Amino acid sequence: MDGVLADVYEQFFRLDEKTTGTRKTVASVVGILEHDAFQNGLQHVLSDGFFRTAPVMKDSQAILQQLNKHYEVFIVSSATEFPKSLAEKQAWLGEYFPFISWKQMVFCGSKTIIQADIMIDDHFKNLDYFNGETILFTQPHNQLADAGRHTRVNTWEEISKILL
Amino acid sequence: MDGVLADVYEQFFRLDEKTTGTRKTVASVVGILEHDAFQNGLQHVLSDGFFRTAPVMKDSQAILQQLNKHYEVFIVSSATEFPKSLAEKQAWLGEYFPFISWKQMVFCGSKTIIQADIMIDDHFKNLDYFNGETILFTQPHNQLADAGRHTRVNTWEEISKILL
Repeated sequence: MDGVLADVYEQFFRLDEKTTGTRKTVASVVGILEHDAFQNGLQHVLSDGFFRTAPVMKDSQAILQQLNKHYEVFIVSSATEFPKSLAEKQAWLGEYFPFISWKQMVFCGSKTIIQADIMIDDHFKNLDYFNGETILFTQPHNQLADAGRHTRVNTWEEISKILL
Repeated sequence: MDGVLADVYEQFFRLDEKTTGTRKTVASVVGILEHDAFQNGLQHVLSDGFFRTAPVMKDSQAILQQLNKHYEVFIVSSATEFPKSLAEKQAWLGEYFPFISWKQMVFCGSKTIIQADIMIDDHFKNLDYFNGETILFTQPHNQLADAGRHTRVNTWEEISKILL
């Protein structure tokens, strides 16, 4: 969800600009995990509304809606580390992805327990443990890394070309 | 979680007694799903605190703590159907099972996406889709059913004898 459907970097850029008065460049955060790339990063994550008001990743709504017609889609989100995020994330999905039912939502800590055919994620720590086809969604923190056995995509358009 | 760690039937018995003035017998609810067995069952589930104040299943705390030393334990709970339950369930686990970290929690809709070696559950709809070893925890709604390929247990003591 974060870094694939929810544009959490954009959320960080906006909150960081509010605090510091200047907007960071993408180049300045490349290769750094979100929490570390922004001043008070963890405080932003813990603040009310961080997940509820996150911008939606470009093209994700229309393409996921198509995928949802052809695949059995589950949204699996790391959420239990920040307990307040659970309700915010479910409400956010309800607003922007209303075609995803409660049966298709999974809020967890570790994703090693997930079994499926294809995983789209921005973190190696999730993809590396997954047995099926793995698609690495480019985000600043993984941009410099070798994708290894995973298929790297930079946009939802690219996901559409692979899966639809 | 519900019907294995959380004694939701006891919660229903208590709430139902408050409403009707008399406590139902277990015999009167055998073979019936909780929502249907109690008057206003769904209203109880939707009310604030239903999951947060559920009683703990007998012996589950001590035995799960032992299991947690010998197995990689995950608590997988159907929760997204009732969005308010997410925060209540995580807080409940934190109070009664503090040795379970956020990394070990999964709140979902369907459990068909879960991959593990052993599943302990009170519902056939979860156990029947699971590829590993399956343990059916007796609850009034499943009491009359043939366990089929699943191993039926009536208490946490029996789980302890099988797994410890």
